[in-house]
Amino acid sequence: MSTNPIKTAVVGASGYSGQELLRLLLMHPGVDLVAVTSRQEAGRPLGEVFPRFRGAAKIADLSFIDPDIDAIAATGAQCAFLALPHGVAYEYASGLLEKGIRVIDLSADFRLNDADIYAEFYGGNHPSPHLLKEAVYGLPEFYAEQIRQARLVASPGCYPTSILVPTLPLVSAGLIDPATIMVSSVSGASGAGKKVDAAYLFTEVNESVRAYGAPKHRHLSEIEQELSLAAGKAVRISFVPHLMPVNAGICTTIFCQPSGDTGSAGKSVADAYAEVYGNAPFVRILGENKFPDTKHVTGTNFVDVGWVEDKRTGRIILFSAEDNLGKGASSQAVQSFNLMFGLSETAGLLNF
Amino acid sequence: MSTNPIKTAVVGASGYSGQELLRLLLMHPGVDLVAVTSRQEAGRPLGEVFPRFRGAAKIADLSFIDPDIDAIAATGAQCAFLALPHGVAYEYASGLLEKGIRVIDLSADFRLNDADIYAEFYGGNHPSPHLLKEAVYGLPEFYAEQIRQARLVASPGCYPTSILVPTLPLVSAGLIDPATIMVSSVSGASGAGKKVDAAYLFTEVNESVRAYGAPKHRHLSEIEQELSLAAGKAVRISFVPHLMPVNAGICTTIFCQPSGDTGSAGKSVADAYAEVYGNAPFVRILGENKFPDTKHVTGTNFVDVGWVEDKRTGRIILFSAEDNLGKGASSQAVQSFNLMFGLSETAGLLNF
Amino acid sequence: MSTNPIKTAVVGASGYSGQELLRLLLMHPGVDLVAVTSRQEAGRPLGEVFPRFRGAAKIADLSFIDPDIDAIAATGAQCAFLALPHGVAYEYASGLLEKGIRVIDLSADFRLNDADIYAEFYGGNHPSPHLLKEAVYGLPEFYAEQIRQARLVASPGCYPTSILVPTLPLVSAGLIDPATIMVSSVSGASGAGKKVDAAYLFTEVNESVRAYGAPKHRHLSEIEQELSLAAGKAVRISFVPHLMPVNAGICTTIFCQPSGDTGSAGKSVADAYAEVYGNAPFVRILGENKFPDTKHVTGTNFVDVGWVEDKRTGRIILFSAEDNLGKGASSQAVQSFNLMFGLSETAGLLNF
Amino acid sequence: MSTNPIKTAVVGASGYSGQELLRLLLMHPGVDLVAVTSRQEAGRPLGEVFPRFRGAAKIADLSFIDPDIDAIAATGAQCAFLALPHGVAYEYASGLLEKGIRVIDLSADFRLNDADIYAEFYGGNHPSPHLLKEAVYGLPEFYAEQIRQARLVASPGCYPTSILVPTLPLVSAGLIDPATIMVSSVSGASGAGKKVDAAYLFTEVNESVRAYGAPKHRHLSEIEQELSLAAGKAVRISFVPHLMPVNAGICTTIFCQPSGDTGSAGKSVADAYAEVYGNAPFVRILGENKFPDTKHVTGTNFVDVGWVEDKRTGRIILFSAEDNLGKGASSQAVQSFNLMFGLSETAGLLNF
Repeated sequence: MSTNPIKTAVVGASGYSGQELLRLLLMHPGVDLVAVTSRQEAGRPLGEVFPRFRGAAKIADLSFIDPDIDAIAATGAQCAFLALPHGVAYEYASGLLEKGIRVIDLSADFRLNDADIYAEFYGGNHPSPHLLKEAVYGLPEFYAEQIRQARLVASPGCYPTSILVPTLPLVSAGLIDPATIMVSSVSGASGAGKKVDAAYLFTEVNESVRAYGAPKHRHLSEIEQELSLAAGKAVRISFVPHLMPVNAGICTTIFCQPSGDTGSAGKSVADAYAEVYGNAPFVRILGENKFPDTKHVTGTNFVDVGWVEDKRTGRIILFSAEDNLGKGASSQAVQSFNLMFGLSETAGLLNF
Repeated sequence: MSTNPIKTAVVGASGYSGQELLRLLLMHPGVDLVAVTSRQEAGRPLGEVFPRFRGAAKIADLSFIDPDIDAIAATGAQCAFLALPHGVAYEYASGLLEKGIRVIDLSADFRLNDADIYAEFYGGNHPSPHLLKEAVYGLPEFYAEQIRQARLVASPGCYPTSILVPTLPLVSAGLIDPATIMVSSVSGASGAGKKVDAAYLFTEVNESVRAYGAPKHRHLSEIEQELSLAAGKAVRISFVPHLMPVNAGICTTIFCQPSGDTGSAGKSVADAYAEVYGNAPFVRILGENKFPDTKHVTGTNFVDVGWVEDKRTGRIILFSAEDNLGKGASSQAVQSFNLMFGLSETAGLLNF
Repeated sequence: MSTNPIKTAVVGASGYSGQELLRLLLMHPGVDLVAVTSRQEAGRPLGEVFPRFRGAAKIADLSFIDPDIDAIAATGAQCAFLALPHGVAYEYASGLLEKGIRVIDLSADFRLNDADIYAEFYGGNHPSPHLLKEAVYGLPEFYAEQIRQARLVASPGCYPTSILVPTLPLVSAGLIDPATIMVSSVSGASGAGKKVDAAYLFTEVNESVRAYGAPKHRHLSEIEQELSLAAGKAVRISFVPHLMPVNAGICTTIFCQPSGDTGSAGKSVADAYAEVYGNAPFVRILGENKFPDTKHVTGTNFVDVGWVEDKRTGRIILFSAEDNLGKGASSQAVQSFNLMFGLSETAGLLNF
Repeated sequence: MSTNPIKTAVVGASGYSGQELLRLLLMHPGVDLVAVTSRQEAGRPLGEVFPRFRGAAKIADLSFIDPDIDAIAATGAQCAFLALPHGVAYEYASGLLEKGIRVIDLSADFRLNDADIYAEFYGGNHPSPHLLKEAVYGLPEFYAEQIRQARLVASPGCYPTSILVPTLPLVSAGLIDPATIMVSSVSGASGAGKKVDAAYLFTEVNESVRAYGAPKHRHLSEIEQELSLAAGKAVRISFVPHLMPVNAGICTTIFCQPSGDTGSAGKSVADAYAEVYGNAPFVRILGENKFPDTKHVTGTNFVDVGWVEDKRTGRIILFSAEDNLGKGASSQAVQSFNLMFGLSETAGLLNF
């Protein structure tokens, strides 16, 4: 581990992924938290805004500041996490990069390689197409080398991570036909962010489950991008997210069909996972006929994976569980941070 | 409505579907509750076992009795609901039918037409194959005429109802290819019954979601039976149930592909539903791009249905929501009861 | 029961108590729902705003209208329920009464006899002190006769009902010293209303319990008013409400000391309750050493009461459970309605 | 911090406090976990029994063993945590102490100084009265010196901690009259332990709140013992626990009256807390008119305290929030462990 803690800023820390990021950085031995911004909380001490964090040595004298690029740079920050809404992050990314600060963006602003797909899914032209090209998709299990060198990491979305982790190795190995992928995901309420909307009141979400956002959820764009890269051809899938009454956690169920590709003959799902994730500290392959449970991953950076073979129909059904704020957002961003700054990949992340 | 209330018994009333059945019958204007049995609660007044029901006029002097066929018959019962475990119900069904009492069975004992499929999914030979033949599958939207005449109704399972209601009209109309059906359902904890098992403790279920029972859940047998009848050929589907932290409700999401059958040309999903459910009081077709929410159906006999066309992949995705103890069990059984005894189909069921 | 259904309006039906009121009135055999108002939902059909109510015969052709007094009067309404915020209800009450429409107000606008206490707890002068005098406090177990004759009923608050029902008979009988009453209540989230505020988001309320509003919650004013009337002297008590993660239900725990009043010699808590509530259809006295559970009263008009004698300290501890939207608001208002219009007190309220 | 990690055993690790203890010890830098026992899980790897802990370096090769004293001693354990039921712990405590292993007992077996009170509250004669005398009550904010030297620490119960932390400083300072203390606590379901009983099924606990165990809960014995010591005279209080639908957390509300003791003249509640807890790392005094929320302490060793002065009645009302498995059980035991082995008091406990 590097001897000096990395001077780190969190830009936009008043939402749920910002809060989770703070929680992780407060416990991270390699981090010196130098700036935490929030337009709406500027001037207030962290412990007042987040009573949970009172008593953490690192926040003793830390207050929120306005999200000003010069002010952040003046703290000597070497790295900035952006926990800002889509469409807001890119401005800060540009400015901070110009100041020589490496950026890990948790928004969707830099996740797509193709500005046209960005326009299709997010609307409007992307304001920094060159940064879109430069940004590395922050899925450390697949892009570790690029992340180590990256100036700008686009940390993946929660649903994408829960879908890509179980599917990419099987698509790459030619074991499943990516065109047959159909996904049903169930997410906790923090996935909606701290959105003050009647639909997310306790009384509305509790004792309720419903699908939403189908058939063209924005996250499809990055999921299909990565599956297409793995498949070597354009892939389109079906995806239905659901909202359920838990605070955190995504439980993803994926139906697909074997490719029948002779090139994969003899290789099993287990083999493919072992090959890709054998040394991945945060992907826990539970095995065949095992069903991951969100309660075992909440608050952690782990993603658990299981599967069944549905012999009666010839299909394979994959399952994953992760914390939408953890491996689906903030702790995954910290995993990239660890790689970028030469720390142990698990530094600050082995919390249970 | 018939002028005299129907003398009615509930056999096995200490579990969750028994309790829901009692709740509905206590409010039903056409029901005279004459016997309520429970081996473990025998001798105890209903209001003591179910404090919620105190104050209901009908239970003032009613206590649980042992589930004895002669004792039930002695009460003059005209109809008996069986809320017993699978494998226990058939004995009571036989005995009660011999006494001239019409039976509505909520277990799986009589849902299958084919004794071999029963053996495959439930194990062992069916003890009353002739009753298996006689029993009517109690899905009133499809078997109303047979239910009216039936001595023995096999009331459908919770997952099957939530899957068959959205799919049967489309399969019958040739609009979707039944072999492409893949189902992901999410159920509340009461679906597991009042099973005293560590896995169902509050602390284990709360803040947790997980798949279970795949790929060969027992309910597949009746789902595939009905889909095969509608399709005119053997159908096998994929089905994954999940457990989620709500008391009641099933949210079902169904992926499928259009059949491309020219015979269905021009007919839409909306048309097919309108044709079948135009006069069905308990199936609420929400329409395209609408997502049913379990919170709008809990405690009721309604099942809500919506769908989307996933034009990017050519698939149709169907959604339904019901109460697993309501339309998925007890209130649906009461709906059959209403038909059997010449009452209005909605008698005692328009609770919100 | 009167032969013609009562023409009834609900003014301000988009919040939680309005919604619960609608639910009850839809199932009430003696009600003809002629007008339902909501400024924000005006023009929209009821079944669209409240998908849960689709399928109810009564709402087939009913849409929300603007809360206009003339428009309401034009429907021929004989009675109007006001489910409006405090400080808004009084205007509608005045106007509707002038049109000869009897009013049941669920807000706090008319619950206090004393305009000074109103000013102390709610701020500002009461705009209709004469109506304050005329209004009857709608606790049917104590004011049934006055309610029957009333033009204007001020239906009690949720906490007050849960506190007054267990204490009033004991204070009246001189069994407990009202000055020693200390109350800790725990309420479900619907008690906060449909308030779109970050503090009531699912993720904030779930897995959380906290006190709030102490030591001078507004509801103290009506609680102390009624206790003082029962005691024949001014009474002040301590009261701490808590917010907990359930949709509905208030669980109230009351510490107090026997009065040592010789006038009550020989009379027990059980006696005092039997005397007052012997014929009360909605107060269920569970008995000594019994603990009411909110799950047995949610969705109903019942309030359950139990108690223990703490012999080690000489105290009596009382317990009650009710639905804050039921006996604590909407169903209690319907109970008053039944009395006002000569219906059976339980009409439309024996739902379980 | 000591250079060598402390060899540590956990005896009885399959319940909820055992599991929480394991979670904390897995993340504790000063702990070498050498033995984990469970009669029912013996032979199974930790990661299989607790899937959440997979991926923790410390458990890679650790399996549950039978709770055998010799076997535990053979591991070289220097310290053993006992997370066993009341009435079972004392045997292991005796045996392990004889082997020279220091013991931290999370059961109630050694919390009382007086064997007669033990007999009154727990039944039967205490089997090791001499150990009862030796054991130190493990409330580090009050017994730190004794804990440092202790061979046997009796770690306090969850309710007692939540009550003693806010009251002891005020009783000691003569600010409140201990005889006027009345407590209403609301606890999460994990407080009931992993008890496989229908009353604790998800469907029974969810959407439910109820009091239980009053008026003479077993925990009163240790609460009154410590209050009596602080008051210098025998104290009896009233206490009502409630069960609510959250996994973890206790929210405690305490009514009491100022003592009117002239000796305390001029000293405020804030002063008394500052004096006692000024350097206590885990007691967070939120201040007057602040209400602690369980969500800010779950998973941590913090206990948050606030209060209000109820000037209308002259009472003081105190509030606390803690995690019943944290400061109320396992993390508090680790806090004692840190003191016993010369580690920093906060070692392994600054998790958020």
